[in-house]
Amino acid sequence: MPVERDIAMQSHTVDIRVRYQETDQMGVVYYANYLVWFEIARTEFFRALGLDYRGLEETRKIYLPVVEASCRYRSSIRYDDKVTLIVKLSSVKKARINFEYEVNCGGRLCATGMTEHTFVNSAGAPIPIPAEVRKVLSIAV
Amino acid sequence: MPVERDIAMQSHTVDIRVRYQETDQMGVVYYANYLVWFEIARTEFFRALGLDYRGLEETRKIYLPVVEASCRYRSSIRYDDKVTLIVKLSSVKKARINFEYEVNCGGRLCATGMTEHTFVNSAGAPIPIPAEVRKVLSIAV
Amino acid sequence: MPVERDIAMQSHTVDIRVRYQETDQMGVVYYANYLVWFEIARTEFFRALGLDYRGLEETRKIYLPVVEASCRYRSSIRYDDKVTLIVKLSSVKKARINFEYEVNCGGRLCATGMTEHTFVNSAGAPIPIPAEVRKVLSIAV
Amino acid sequence: MPVERDIAMQSHTVDIRVRYQETDQMGVVYYANYLVWFEIARTEFFRALGLDYRGLEETRKIYLPVVEASCRYRSSIRYDDKVTLIVKLSSVKKARINFEYEVNCGGRLCATGMTEHTFVNSAGAPIPIPAEVRKVLSIAV
Repeated sequence: MPVERDIAMQSHTVDIRVRYQETDQMGVVYYANYLVWFEIARTEFFRALGLDYRGLEETRKIYLPVVEASCRYRSSIRYDDKVTLIVKLSSVKKARINFEYEVNCGGRLCATGMTEHTFVNSAGAPIPIPAEVRKVLSIAV
Repeated sequence: MPVERDIAMQSHTVDIRVRYQETDQMGVVYYANYLVWFEIARTEFFRALGLDYRGLEETRKIYLPVVEASCRYRSSIRYDDKVTLIVKLSSVKKARINFEYEVNCGGRLCATGMTEHTFVNSAGAPIPIPAEVRKVLSIAV
Repeated sequence: MPVERDIAMQSHTVDIRVRYQETDQMGVVYYANYLVWFEIARTEFFRALGLDYRGLEETRKIYLPVVEASCRYRSSIRYDDKVTLIVKLSSVKKARINFEYEVNCGGRLCATGMTEHTFVNSAGAPIPIPAEVRKVLSIAV
Repeated sequence: MPVERDIAMQSHTVDIRVRYQETDQMGVVYYANYLVWFEIARTEFFRALGLDYRGLEETRKIYLPVVEASCRYRSSIRYDDKVTLIVKLSSVKKARINFEYEVNCGGRLCATGMTEHTFVNSAGAPIPIPAEVRKVLSIAV
């Protein structure tokens, strides 16, 4: 009986506008900012699933630190571009979840990425995925 | 008997190197980053005075939020420039302290600024300047 | 005959959601990020006035660097808060324009600020406000 | 005759101090900032090899955009921590170079990462690694 299982790729889409602050002197979005966008996509995905991530931290003292992140940059993005972020829950394990991301702009796929997260308590100790979260994520399966 | 008093302009100097991330598509340092540099200068000034700001937060649960900040930009600064930050304690009131900043680069004064801070406890309530901090700051008078 | 004149306080409103990245370990939005929000408000204000700031840079090689910025912080703002930015054009001089900002959250005025800008060409030399921009800004008068 | 070859892991070490701005409300360094640190390490590695990356952009109009980046987070890092970055050139291909990174703090390996870069001209078109850069990098082999 596998602990991990593949889940259907239900996704959520978020539109953002590129900030001047997010550019660098190469005239394009600085590469670390894609990870900031991934975080926005996660928050909005959770909200769409009925899960309030802020409340999870504030009320339940449960946190989702990132244990791994990667991004593949295919085409650069510029100031004031309208960017469409697509986030998918790609796997749920006993204590970890994985997201995949697409960054689209002007009808082109500009970047892809992934993040892996654990669940920890306020002391930073790993915990299993809370039942309420597991239930919500099953909607995304 | 005045609560506020002018204090001698003892200063502290910190050198930093401009990060690529700090630039924008105008090819110069993005304006909000000067406030990040002010924060670095404050931390190092405190350290030079023998005051561990991190410890103040962690151990004493005392925080110094910014209540006002301003910056006047005179000359732009570029990637990889070596920047010299000069911070001065400009005034100490009952519950507030003010810092002034100079941002120098290539022998030129590129920006000036100020910040005003209150002291608050972990509940965010204003508190008088703690005795240990007042004592340390008196060195800077 | 005064070069400067007061202009009617026509304003523009922009809603944003606070990013996790914008918080710091005090649990609130880091102070420099308010200046990033001011920039977002300016861009959207220009767009609402029919002025494409990106195009101004790309096509006309005209830039609006900040020469002064300030912010007064009244009440802290947290992750995932919905923030309403109000930007007003407060003065137009021969070669400079000034904006004022309000940062509102949860029905409270949390911060106020201002920025002053010059117009420069691609060589960084000051230029008068271009006619097309002056015309657009007169709508905001 | 292989285009790619493994190169000896000559490395460069850079010390930085964690900025308050780099933390988030979890009380640790926000995950995207590790990629900013990687960029600092690259710049300083180039400088140590006698290669001025700023000059490469300014004079030669040669740029090194990131085409892939990843980071594995093992242990969190806090405000004011002294962080030691170790960067290694891990492979040199015809038109791409790869770096590997270690992020150490308090005697612990806190994160590892990699970036892959292409060389492009001012039009953004891919170019072979310039001879002067290839020569410098051969020092690092």
